[in-house]
Amino acid sequence: MKTYKQQDLAKMNDRDRARFVNCLSGFKSANVIGTRDRHQQNNLAMISSVVHLGSNPPLLGFVMRPQSVTRHTWENIEESGVYTINQVNENFFRQAHQTSARYPRETSEFEACGLTPEFVDGFHAPYVAESSLRIGMQQVEIIPIQHNDTALIVGEVRWVEVKEEAVKSDGFIDIESLGTMTISGLDGYHRTQRAARLSYAKPDEELSELDAEGEPKD
Amino acid sequence: MKTYKQQDLAKMNDRDRARFVNCLSGFKSANVIGTRDRHQQNNLAMISSVVHLGSNPPLLGFVMRPQSVTRHTWENIEESGVYTINQVNENFFRQAHQTSARYPRETSEFEACGLTPEFVDGFHAPYVAESSLRIGMQQVEIIPIQHNDTALIVGEVRWVEVKEEAVKSDGFIDIESLGTMTISGLDGYHRTQRAARLSYAKPDEELSELDAEGEPKD
Repeated sequence: MKTYKQQDLAKMNDRDRARFVNCLSGFKSANVIGTRDRHQQNNLAMISSVVHLGSNPPLLGFVMRPQSVTRHTWENIEESGVYTINQVNENFFRQAHQTSARYPRETSEFEACGLTPEFVDGFHAPYVAESSLRIGMQQVEIIPIQHNDTALIVGEVRWVEVKEEAVKSDGFIDIESLGTMTISGLDGYHRTQRAARLSYAKPDEELSELDAEGEPKD
Repeated sequence: MKTYKQQDLAKMNDRDRARFVNCLSGFKSANVIGTRDRHQQNNLAMISSVVHLGSNPPLLGFVMRPQSVTRHTWENIEESGVYTINQVNENFFRQAHQTSARYPRETSEFEACGLTPEFVDGFHAPYVAESSLRIGMQQVEIIPIQHNDTALIVGEVRWVEVKEEAVKSDGFIDIESLGTMTISGLDGYHRTQRAARLSYAKPDEELSELDAEGEPKD
């Protein structure tokens, strides 16, 4: 094993440190966030920090830097209060990655990157037609992280569209069957292969493996 | 596609809703968090919400509920200010999952689940010897999420231990080569298979694929 101390990280050049530190948290979620401003200008941004916050109410969060390349997303959410989260799958992960380029405000990343904006009736923000799991979100809280001038955007789920066959009888969604990708670092895109679903852990009880529907395997 | 509206989610039973909503964010990071109280009692908790916050300073966050099964972790971090984050790999993901059982305070999940606590000189919190990427963390901020009574624990990286051969010349860590797992929902554990490393995206420039070291592929 090699040890990296705080001062070793400090000595790295910025790009190398960014690549290194971005790998430390483990695999990341791969989503694109769709927003729209008051002039009907669409925006789409690759985000690898979407995180589950709670299921009742259904809350998801993601991390943003107000002044970064994703500032249009930030401004649109502040203005409209809504956005979509769209899981990135193997059929469009290159287009999704391309949305992270620094396009001018008047460019729609949908158009520039070859993705299709569509709308759920009455919901202001566009979703990505190519995604097999897309979520309509209402922003409910923006929480500043003092330590590095970022913020956690907290939103509540308003609607979910998902391929029906991926939803199992116990509520589990087989996102692997949707081709959903996962990210390592800044630029690594991975497919997945399920090893197991495991039973709810209890002290003094052996774990069992579950089948796709959440029933104990023989 | 099937649509789930807010009221459809509200009507689900709690367990099914938890399974469903936990799949919406996409794939999650798989880590166990090691802590120790002032009586030298070790604690280990499975956490799927570790998220990258920034690389300079190197910050990671994770989400916690003060009153949940992970309350001993919370208390130990409040008391000592330090913890370890240990990437879960395919060799011990069952033991890692088992740490989520509700053990009494005086039980060490290391012992109960068959994992090995070890220490970096002078650092109070134990790491998991079975992990190939472990991080010593100093808590720097605890940010309450008003909307559902959870909190984001923000910490700064103090040290990293990682298998040397996994660290590439540009700083990228090949966490797939470490066998690091990714999680879907509450109980799905997955291996990964890299599809591509993609170049830094720029407007008007084609993406290229990078090799393992971050150099453009021919």
